[in-house]
Amino acid sequence: MNRSFLFEGQQGLLHGGDYNPDQWLDRPDILQEDVRLMKKAHVNTVSLGIFSWAVYEPVEGEYHFEWLQEIIDTLYQNGICTVLATPSGARPAWLDRKYEEVRRVNKYGVREHHGIRHNHCMSSRVFRQKVKEITEKLYEAVGTHPGVKLWHISNELGGECYCPLCAARFQEYLRKKFHNDIQELNKAWWNAFWSHNYSCFEEIEPPLEYGESSSMGLDLEWRRFTTWNMTDYLKSEIETIRGLGSTLPITTNFMELYEGLDYREMEKELDVISWDSYPRFHNDHESFETTMWNTAFHNTVMQSMKKDRPFMLMESAPGLVNWHVYNKLKRPYVHRLFSLQAVACGSDTVQYFQWRKGRGGYEQYHGAVVDHLGTDDTRTFREVAALGEDLEKLAEVAGSVPEAEAALILDWDTMWAVNDMMGLARETKKYAQTCMEWYRLMASMGLNVNIIPQTEELSEYKLVVAPMMYMLKPETAVRLKEYIQKGGQLLATYVTGYVDQNQLCYLGGFPGDGLKDVFGVISEEIDTFYPTDRNQVTLWDGSKAQVRDYAELLRVQEDVRILGQYDADFYQGMPAVTEHSYGAGTVCYVAARMESQANRRILELLVSRSGLDLPKLPEGVEYHVREAGGERYIFLLNLEEKEKQIDEINGTDLLTQKLCDGTVKLEPYGVMVVKVKQG
Amino acid sequence: MNRSFLFEGQQGLLHGGDYNPDQWLDRPDILQEDVRLMKKAHVNTVSLGIFSWAVYEPVEGEYHFEWLQEIIDTLYQNGICTVLATPSGARPAWLDRKYEEVRRVNKYGVREHHGIRHNHCMSSRVFRQKVKEITEKLYEAVGTHPGVKLWHISNELGGECYCPLCAARFQEYLRKKFHNDIQELNKAWWNAFWSHNYSCFEEIEPPLEYGESSSMGLDLEWRRFTTWNMTDYLKSEIETIRGLGSTLPITTNFMELYEGLDYREMEKELDVISWDSYPRFHNDHESFETTMWNTAFHNTVMQSMKKDRPFMLMESAPGLVNWHVYNKLKRPYVHRLFSLQAVACGSDTVQYFQWRKGRGGYEQYHGAVVDHLGTDDTRTFREVAALGEDLEKLAEVAGSVPEAEAALILDWDTMWAVNDMMGLARETKKYAQTCMEWYRLMASMGLNVNIIPQTEELSEYKLVVAPMMYMLKPETAVRLKEYIQKGGQLLATYVTGYVDQNQLCYLGGFPGDGLKDVFGVISEEIDTFYPTDRNQVTLWDGSKAQVRDYAELLRVQEDVRILGQYDADFYQGMPAVTEHSYGAGTVCYVAARMESQANRRILELLVSRSGLDLPKLPEGVEYHVREAGGERYIFLLNLEEKEKQIDEINGTDLLTQKLCDGTVKLEPYGVMVVKVKQG
Amino acid sequence: MNRSFLFEGQQGLLHGGDYNPDQWLDRPDILQEDVRLMKKAHVNTVSLGIFSWAVYEPVEGEYHFEWLQEIIDTLYQNGICTVLATPSGARPAWLDRKYEEVRRVNKYGVREHHGIRHNHCMSSRVFRQKVKEITEKLYEAVGTHPGVKLWHISNELGGECYCPLCAARFQEYLRKKFHNDIQELNKAWWNAFWSHNYSCFEEIEPPLEYGESSSMGLDLEWRRFTTWNMTDYLKSEIETIRGLGSTLPITTNFMELYEGLDYREMEKELDVISWDSYPRFHNDHESFETTMWNTAFHNTVMQSMKKDRPFMLMESAPGLVNWHVYNKLKRPYVHRLFSLQAVACGSDTVQYFQWRKGRGGYEQYHGAVVDHLGTDDTRTFREVAALGEDLEKLAEVAGSVPEAEAALILDWDTMWAVNDMMGLARETKKYAQTCMEWYRLMASMGLNVNIIPQTEELSEYKLVVAPMMYMLKPETAVRLKEYIQKGGQLLATYVTGYVDQNQLCYLGGFPGDGLKDVFGVISEEIDTFYPTDRNQVTLWDGSKAQVRDYAELLRVQEDVRILGQYDADFYQGMPAVTEHSYGAGTVCYVAARMESQANRRILELLVSRSGLDLPKLPEGVEYHVREAGGERYIFLLNLEEKEKQIDEINGTDLLTQKLCDGTVKLEPYGVMVVKVKQG
Repeated sequence: MNRSFLFEGQQGLLHGGDYNPDQWLDRPDILQEDVRLMKKAHVNTVSLGIFSWAVYEPVEGEYHFEWLQEIIDTLYQNGICTVLATPSGARPAWLDRKYEEVRRVNKYGVREHHGIRHNHCMSSRVFRQKVKEITEKLYEAVGTHPGVKLWHISNELGGECYCPLCAARFQEYLRKKFHNDIQELNKAWWNAFWSHNYSCFEEIEPPLEYGESSSMGLDLEWRRFTTWNMTDYLKSEIETIRGLGSTLPITTNFMELYEGLDYREMEKELDVISWDSYPRFHNDHESFETTMWNTAFHNTVMQSMKKDRPFMLMESAPGLVNWHVYNKLKRPYVHRLFSLQAVACGSDTVQYFQWRKGRGGYEQYHGAVVDHLGTDDTRTFREVAALGEDLEKLAEVAGSVPEAEAALILDWDTMWAVNDMMGLARETKKYAQTCMEWYRLMASMGLNVNIIPQTEELSEYKLVVAPMMYMLKPETAVRLKEYIQKGGQLLATYVTGYVDQNQLCYLGGFPGDGLKDVFGVISEEIDTFYPTDRNQVTLWDGSKAQVRDYAELLRVQEDVRILGQYDADFYQGMPAVTEHSYGAGTVCYVAARMESQANRRILELLVSRSGLDLPKLPEGVEYHVREAGGERYIFLLNLEEKEKQIDEINGTDLLTQKLCDGTVKLEPYGVMVVKVKQG
Repeated sequence: MNRSFLFEGQQGLLHGGDYNPDQWLDRPDILQEDVRLMKKAHVNTVSLGIFSWAVYEPVEGEYHFEWLQEIIDTLYQNGICTVLATPSGARPAWLDRKYEEVRRVNKYGVREHHGIRHNHCMSSRVFRQKVKEITEKLYEAVGTHPGVKLWHISNELGGECYCPLCAARFQEYLRKKFHNDIQELNKAWWNAFWSHNYSCFEEIEPPLEYGESSSMGLDLEWRRFTTWNMTDYLKSEIETIRGLGSTLPITTNFMELYEGLDYREMEKELDVISWDSYPRFHNDHESFETTMWNTAFHNTVMQSMKKDRPFMLMESAPGLVNWHVYNKLKRPYVHRLFSLQAVACGSDTVQYFQWRKGRGGYEQYHGAVVDHLGTDDTRTFREVAALGEDLEKLAEVAGSVPEAEAALILDWDTMWAVNDMMGLARETKKYAQTCMEWYRLMASMGLNVNIIPQTEELSEYKLVVAPMMYMLKPETAVRLKEYIQKGGQLLATYVTGYVDQNQLCYLGGFPGDGLKDVFGVISEEIDTFYPTDRNQVTLWDGSKAQVRDYAELLRVQEDVRILGQYDADFYQGMPAVTEHSYGAGTVCYVAARMESQANRRILELLVSRSGLDLPKLPEGVEYHVREAGGERYIFLLNLEEKEKQIDEINGTDLLTQKLCDGTVKLEPYGVMVVKVKQG
Repeated sequence: MNRSFLFEGQQGLLHGGDYNPDQWLDRPDILQEDVRLMKKAHVNTVSLGIFSWAVYEPVEGEYHFEWLQEIIDTLYQNGICTVLATPSGARPAWLDRKYEEVRRVNKYGVREHHGIRHNHCMSSRVFRQKVKEITEKLYEAVGTHPGVKLWHISNELGGECYCPLCAARFQEYLRKKFHNDIQELNKAWWNAFWSHNYSCFEEIEPPLEYGESSSMGLDLEWRRFTTWNMTDYLKSEIETIRGLGSTLPITTNFMELYEGLDYREMEKELDVISWDSYPRFHNDHESFETTMWNTAFHNTVMQSMKKDRPFMLMESAPGLVNWHVYNKLKRPYVHRLFSLQAVACGSDTVQYFQWRKGRGGYEQYHGAVVDHLGTDDTRTFREVAALGEDLEKLAEVAGSVPEAEAALILDWDTMWAVNDMMGLARETKKYAQTCMEWYRLMASMGLNVNIIPQTEELSEYKLVVAPMMYMLKPETAVRLKEYIQKGGQLLATYVTGYVDQNQLCYLGGFPGDGLKDVFGVISEEIDTFYPTDRNQVTLWDGSKAQVRDYAELLRVQEDVRILGQYDADFYQGMPAVTEHSYGAGTVCYVAARMESQANRRILELLVSRSGLDLPKLPEGVEYHVREAGGERYIFLLNLEEKEKQIDEINGTDLLTQKLCDGTVKLEPYGVMVVKVKQG
């Protein structure tokens, strides 16, 4: 695979972040000092103008871009390039006052007042027009400046609106989806239940708080519509930019597994993926290691959207975050470990929110490279500068991408459907957490994993894990069947194949759509546990594993091998883990939510069958590989406070330029990036 | 007492449930299979049309009943009778869109949007008219079909509306109740406090969330009005049916001690009592035994409304429920135990929601006789079919009713008043739970208990327990006094007789209205405990009991016997349990919330005085008696996993046809129904 | 200092409370009995008419004051004086129905309905006019009666309104504050952040729930405005009274540290401070001793507003309160201890809500001197009567005021800013609790403390403690610097001097505005702890103290002495407590939230430097001194159940008339009031 860069002329990895000089226009001394400090911190990129609309256009039709031009010039002269944002992240007060429709109506049916940010009615023609106008002016002012390398559309798009404009668009969306046939919709939503049949599309309202809150079909299509409408808005911004003639790559910044939007629909419109990463480090509900693994998971979700191109870590906190419930200081080793993990997972950037702490506002205490103290000797500044040096040493990694031999299936609409379904237990469904748990088990074995939707081709993977694949889309069963038949290894779990894409239950046995024959099992019942309930499974090797939350009661075909069975309750002795050969492949079905150790044991069994040759890793070490143009870079991250030893590593550590010849030692919380010696 | 049947021509006990064929009209194969499966499951009754309005009348004025006629025919031909519902449980979307007034206004003053169900404005003339029309059409179509045996009005009536129509009716209700004299109302509500005097009835609004939330009088009358208005609505449906000439019995399904409606007011309009029973089995906050006892309590509340006629268990879950917070599987023995408990307590039916799981909708995972799997060999199906066989063996029990020698007093408006009163502690008043606790103690001693309002005649009972009888109605004190005077045994507790029917405190000492002299005590103060607080009582026999939540400080008359006193705190040595002879009877006053063991000891004392001859029961055994026409049926239910032995049982076990001659053995979780050998 | 009385002709201490005869006008027997009981209870004062508007004016324009005249007459003839309230605490229903604007709009933008109390739109001209009219009528009726001694304005003023009238006044307030310059406001609120610049004042709305919730500047000025508007309203009532010619002193009753209003702004308009004290005694989250100390704290907050005049304990509960979450009985010793503590802290009154329990209404179970039982032999009545005797023995204390040699700095707007700031942890900021903790440490050492704003002169104090002084006002740094320079002892803590009066962060290091040089430290970072996190500090003497919640990482000047350092984590060994000499004084900086014992040790160090000569007190003894005209009264309160011995007490115990000659013994929960023997 050839190297693929974020934009034309990219030199090495990018280091920088959001820069808001518009807050300091009356302090030229500070603006000047910023440039000195950026260079000292090895910063080569800033994001500009994300919330500058009210400075660009303080009253309607009056524009001010001189200051921006000057800033971009100065930075450019100092070797710092610009990611240029469209200013639609927040609306000026005059806009909200004059044009009511740009403000959202919330789920209580109340039109919001002016305030906060990220809360536009995405259906509003007025809003789109106003954004178009300011973007044209912005483009005119600085859009062709050589320092500008990339467009950053708006900011952290999200939320939903229940206004009449949105309701009307929702009806149009439904009309199209259901072929203008209200009976098709009634059937898909099972509306005969509770007398919910509509007689026409005009009767359908969004799921308002004091309205229809009992229709899973409505909820699901409302979420799909919200994604569709947001993507439509995103496209309108992109069209403006392209209409102006700009050919620069375009991104918008995502937020983890933000539940409100299926990012994979939006991704199709973008050139580059970027995201904002704000883990809660050192918290009181999980280990530091778990926080790190979950962050790796999110990095991988982003990387897997555009597999052939690095992504951007667009925002992260130097120091602490100010809007968590507890805003604890990041320990000294975290900044480096966290930043290089993103690079390990495929990021070509490490960027921050923000460069300098503002004196006031909602995020005045959000960590920044430059503190209110203002000096270049703070702990945070020193950590950032040191990381800048590291990134320079890793310059040649730029443009390479992770390799993956395994996949984990995760879908936004499956998540929506599972979370919304009435059944199981409200608090313990944990779809996303379950995916994270399986990702962690896979990755900690040294597997390089992609996180993909069920609609994606599987043939390139030796192993596929599909946790809680509650909803099956039209071709999914066929694709899985073919994958296994041809020798694939599949691991599936409880709560698989209950419903189709409309959330209608399959008749004739779960998993539906023919999968019961492929898996060799039918899930007849599922037991839901109170938090204090437990069961236990004995695995094939005699080991025991605790069960929590869920346990399915299976009927199994004769040719199924039982890998584990329940130890207690009225279903004692019934199968809890099964294995079924199908064609050249195997399906392993895990019917209960078990402890990690048991899940890991099952995974190891599948890996051993898959023919994969995994590195031997001690616990607490992250292992990622990026490659391009025949080069391979192994990233080793030590997530624990003790030294680790890893065997069979050969090449050169780019961070120290030391040769690795077999066994290497990893300092506590240390990182190595080994350019592999080609055999 | 003669046998009393639910409807003319009833044959044995009924077994069946809600059947929603309108969800499967495009699947004639499934409708055909339903009949086969019903017969296999020994089902002889279904409830039809509960939520069928939108299928009956998909657009205004266009009706479709052919399918219903066909279903009722087919069922009838197969020996299955129909409980026919009026379809007013949920409104079609077209109705809500066209006639705004049918939608409720919630307590925030916001008109609700279309959605969910059970949310009609009960004052709306339009709604009543529309229900009348559809009911007439329904009657015309199938109302005189011989398979139709009983009317089921609407479904689970409940909720409240704050719209202008309801507000106006509330004012009219108040005007009538207070003789068109606003000063009478002001005095009853003590409105001089906080300047709350109204100058006219037009000033009174319902207790809106952002309105008057500090008036106990308003709250109480609002609840009474809501019951009155709902009953008025219920009557309007009944009048329609009677106006059409139907003489079939009429019921509507209740929901436990649903706090929103005083069912005893509605009961007066009904021919048959029915209710929906959905306990949380195997939960994490009480033992299985407690769940069962509380379910017996609710069965008894229902039975006690119409003592001379069996009630109907109208809905219950085969398998699990899907809308609890944790939806755990019912263990194998539960279905039989739960169903036969209902029969033991006076039900002539065991009915389910629902027959077949729908593919979609809010309750797609609610347990049903036929699963999505669709086969007749699921655990649930087999349990249901076996229960059907049991019910056939108990056919002769039909029409008999429970006998009772003791009563427990519980009132809806006392519950409302206690819960609403400002005082004691918000979380620990537990009026209903306290009643359940006393019911359990009584019933587990083998007492057959009625649960009655304080307005009811007491002379037939040998023992009356009145827990937390906070509110005294006009004749209550007189009735209690007479009851005791003539030899009755009364047990009363803390928080008795504080207020009159308007919630005005009695002056001159609690319990008021003259009861202090009958009881021989005055409660001068009541201490409220934090959850971590404890006191202790030493009883007359030296035994100790922990005190939680509440402890009254009593003044006692000289002729009072002290049965227990406090062991700690500044009221150490003061009386906690007293006994007072009055006429030929006795009152026992329990001034503190004590552990069950102590309460049981006190009850035993009263029983020994009452001359009642109770069976000797081991712990964990439920004992109920039904009788009719000289026959007595003893129900024995084992609530524990170990075998139990019960002495002095003579007769024939109807379930096994085995003779019982003295001592019988009850299997773990087993049930016996012994037809008593007549002396 | 000369004696200063509440009103002209005050005789000794006042004892009494809210009296609501308007609830009993149809019971002359009860009104007559009231007078007998008041005399028996040694009551000499009542508050009248607080919620009588609907009785005074039952329909608009129709007035009834005869009953009030009669009551005041009768009381006066029996030696009982009257505190006369304006009736604006609650509005009659007719007023709300006719004049919509008098009802508030809540933060959801919804106009409230009639109900409750204390919920007027303070901007409404109609409301002010109506209050003026009824006050004029009231004055006319009884305003010059010799029995009336003091005006009581409205009741427990509080809350806020978001209506258009208030929004417009808010804009006017801002326009004036920011010199009609919207850019000045934008800069003060750092509005360039998130594009929040306003283009004109008309764009500014109150912080509505569905509006601007991310602007600290808006929040702070909204709170300041709410205080300003409430004070303006208060002035309007005062003007009415003064306009009528009355020269009686005027008060309004405060509620602890009620967060909604900066009482120190309102205080300026009043002649006398009064407040309502309702501690949660014997609760489950703190010791009885802590509850008492916190109550002393609140008494001291009140006393410190007008240091040269006693305050009034306007309301307290005889017996229990009915609106706490758990309404536990006050133990027998509490009434005396609590009441005499108020006197010890500077109150010249002990007054209750209320004299007699009403039969109904929201507070029918609120403790009162006369119970529903109605007799004079209840525990509560006896305690009240005994306290009345005590107060008569303390008559000569009247008019004296506490002396103070130390101060604790607490500010309302600092509290608002700390609570609103985004940073640290949402649940553990605890500004007020931290102030209480330091007050307790100071007071329990025998220090007499004033609780003052940072704007107040410090020179009279030997020791000043300023906990969490997050916000610095314009002259504060200068004042502190001067205080220390001249020999003052200052103790400051973590979270000091982060922001200016607009909440803009100081640049160049915290504590800002020059204090870093005075203190010798800069706080570079602050670590926020999860509730399960701990660190430890070792103090200069080797003692250890646990750290919770917060720990600052300091840079210290060379001349700073390290009094304690951290024992763990990455900042192990860094300074946690420092001391810096500046001029003739010293600043001690406590950088972490430590256990009480450590804080006490540090305080002792400062006291030893201050030259103060403190009494030697055993633990659990409260010590207060009041003085006037050369007399000193030492109050000793024993907060524990065991006898205490205190040395060096000379004088006469006014309660027993016993001579104290050196060592005295204090009974469990006992009180002594020693009139000091002059040299």
